[in-house]
Amino acid sequence: MTDTVISSANREVRIGFEQPFVIIGERINPTGRKILAEEMKQGDYTRVEQDALAQVAAGARMLDVNAGIPLADEPRILAECIRLVQSITDVPLSIDSSIVAALEAGLEAYQGKPLLNSVTGEEERLEAVLPLVAKYKCAVVAISNDEAGISENPDERFEVARKIVQRAADHGVHYSDIVVDPLVMPVGAVNSAGRQVLHLVKRLREELKVNTTCGASNFSFGIPNRKGMDGHFLSMIIGAGMTSAITNPLHEDVMQGVMAADVVMGHDRNCARWLKKYRQPADASGTAAAGRAGRAGRRRRRA
Amino acid sequence: MTDTVISSANREVRIGFEQPFVIIGERINPTGRKILAEEMKQGDYTRVEQDALAQVAAGARMLDVNAGIPLADEPRILAECIRLVQSITDVPLSIDSSIVAALEAGLEAYQGKPLLNSVTGEEERLEAVLPLVAKYKCAVVAISNDEAGISENPDERFEVARKIVQRAADHGVHYSDIVVDPLVMPVGAVNSAGRQVLHLVKRLREELKVNTTCGASNFSFGIPNRKGMDGHFLSMIIGAGMTSAITNPLHEDVMQGVMAADVVMGHDRNCARWLKKYRQPADASGTAAAGRAGRAGRRRRRA
Repeated sequence: MTDTVISSANREVRIGFEQPFVIIGERINPTGRKILAEEMKQGDYTRVEQDALAQVAAGARMLDVNAGIPLADEPRILAECIRLVQSITDVPLSIDSSIVAALEAGLEAYQGKPLLNSVTGEEERLEAVLPLVAKYKCAVVAISNDEAGISENPDERFEVARKIVQRAADHGVHYSDIVVDPLVMPVGAVNSAGRQVLHLVKRLREELKVNTTCGASNFSFGIPNRKGMDGHFLSMIIGAGMTSAITNPLHEDVMQGVMAADVVMGHDRNCARWLKKYRQPADASGTAAAGRAGRAGRRRRRA
Repeated sequence: MTDTVISSANREVRIGFEQPFVIIGERINPTGRKILAEEMKQGDYTRVEQDALAQVAAGARMLDVNAGIPLADEPRILAECIRLVQSITDVPLSIDSSIVAALEAGLEAYQGKPLLNSVTGEEERLEAVLPLVAKYKCAVVAISNDEAGISENPDERFEVARKIVQRAADHGVHYSDIVVDPLVMPVGAVNSAGRQVLHLVKRLREELKVNTTCGASNFSFGIPNRKGMDGHFLSMIIGAGMTSAITNPLHEDVMQGVMAADVVMGHDRNCARWLKKYRQPADASGTAAAGRAGRAGRRRRRA
């Protein structure tokens, strides 16, 4: 029963074993998005704003913000994006960078208790990031790789996660503020990738009692009907105990997988959210139907 | 590592922990299908034939055959349907009736080793059905209810399953020939229905070492977007260890859930079946593309 509490200035989100699954919107990230990277570098954050609002409307309960643009002033851009996103939405954020100075700039700019993304099992990274987590009293994503890279043996990845949790404790960081990413491999390359994640999620939950997250769409890299696979991979890892994921809520298959999984896990009381989304207007009273029509309209515009 | 082997005259199917998931096609069943019931009663089995062929083409690896028509000669009709279905397809069958004389007529007519559907924990049923299972050396579906009905407490349903497995052993029936149905409740009525099944599948597998099946579509009874939910419920229970289900392979959402789950479980080597179904013709060589076009054509006609 571990809850990881993340907050903005006036909203709190709990990632937890008995909580609805938390989608952390992945879109605000210039990696592989040339136009967005160029715009962000020029200080044009129009698309960042759109991505923030669209993901929240689609069901993201947190947003990841990444400003990893080669040869740009990443700390400044990340801080600006965080201030901007916090000014237009109240969902809590994940501050995402491989550069420690950018993480610190993001933390300085942030209002509330963010999720810092990320620390790994590498010595240098542990000693650079964990003091920030302690100083800013935030939560942190712990990625289960170390100097040796990403082990193909899931139990070695588990040991890296255990090391991070132990080291965090030395810095005064409680395990409830650590969200472990067990690392998702592409199933097209590693046939056991799915089983590895199901196995790790259970061990992480039962033995380390930590919450978990992952970049869910890595799984389907290189195979067709990616979104169909992403939706089922998500519902299955939620069934195994995963409590959050950094993924794209704008895809209907992804949202359906997460919403169905919340129903199956008993985390959508009376199936209220499922009914709200999928019940036809004819079934319902006028007021409720109007609300649904609005939602359906937004969905169509995004498609 | 329990395999339940079911066979027709010349094909064997394994339901097992390390096997691809087995869909048992549910369509040949007059319950709630007025026209089919009337036709079957008149000895017109055209629709039975069509249902058999369509389900196998869609991916059913076994077929359930039920002839439960009020005031009809069920033993004769069931035996006729079984002979007919075995004459046009070689997938193994599940012989499905609440009437013991019909089960026996079906067993007499069957070629191979069928799945008998079903025994319950009721004394009378145990003592009527288990001797047939022993005599015909078949496998049997064990439904976890007894004289007290269906317990809402999953651990009581587990105890019913344990009793059936023990009683079967007294009749010389090995647990590998028992496929337990933990009973799926509608989530619209029982909010914990999904968690119950996930919990029971794990216990049945770990403690009784038995294979499992269920009527998967009961879960979504009464809620909207049933097929979307069915697909995710299936992938999630497969993730928890369910090894077969009596369901409708003609629904694309259902098949996608099962195929995705096979990939995630590592039971679709090199994602071969997933690629075959979803890869676009442009990706592939001429021969493979032709095969896929044929499949896609069949899918469209059924839709």
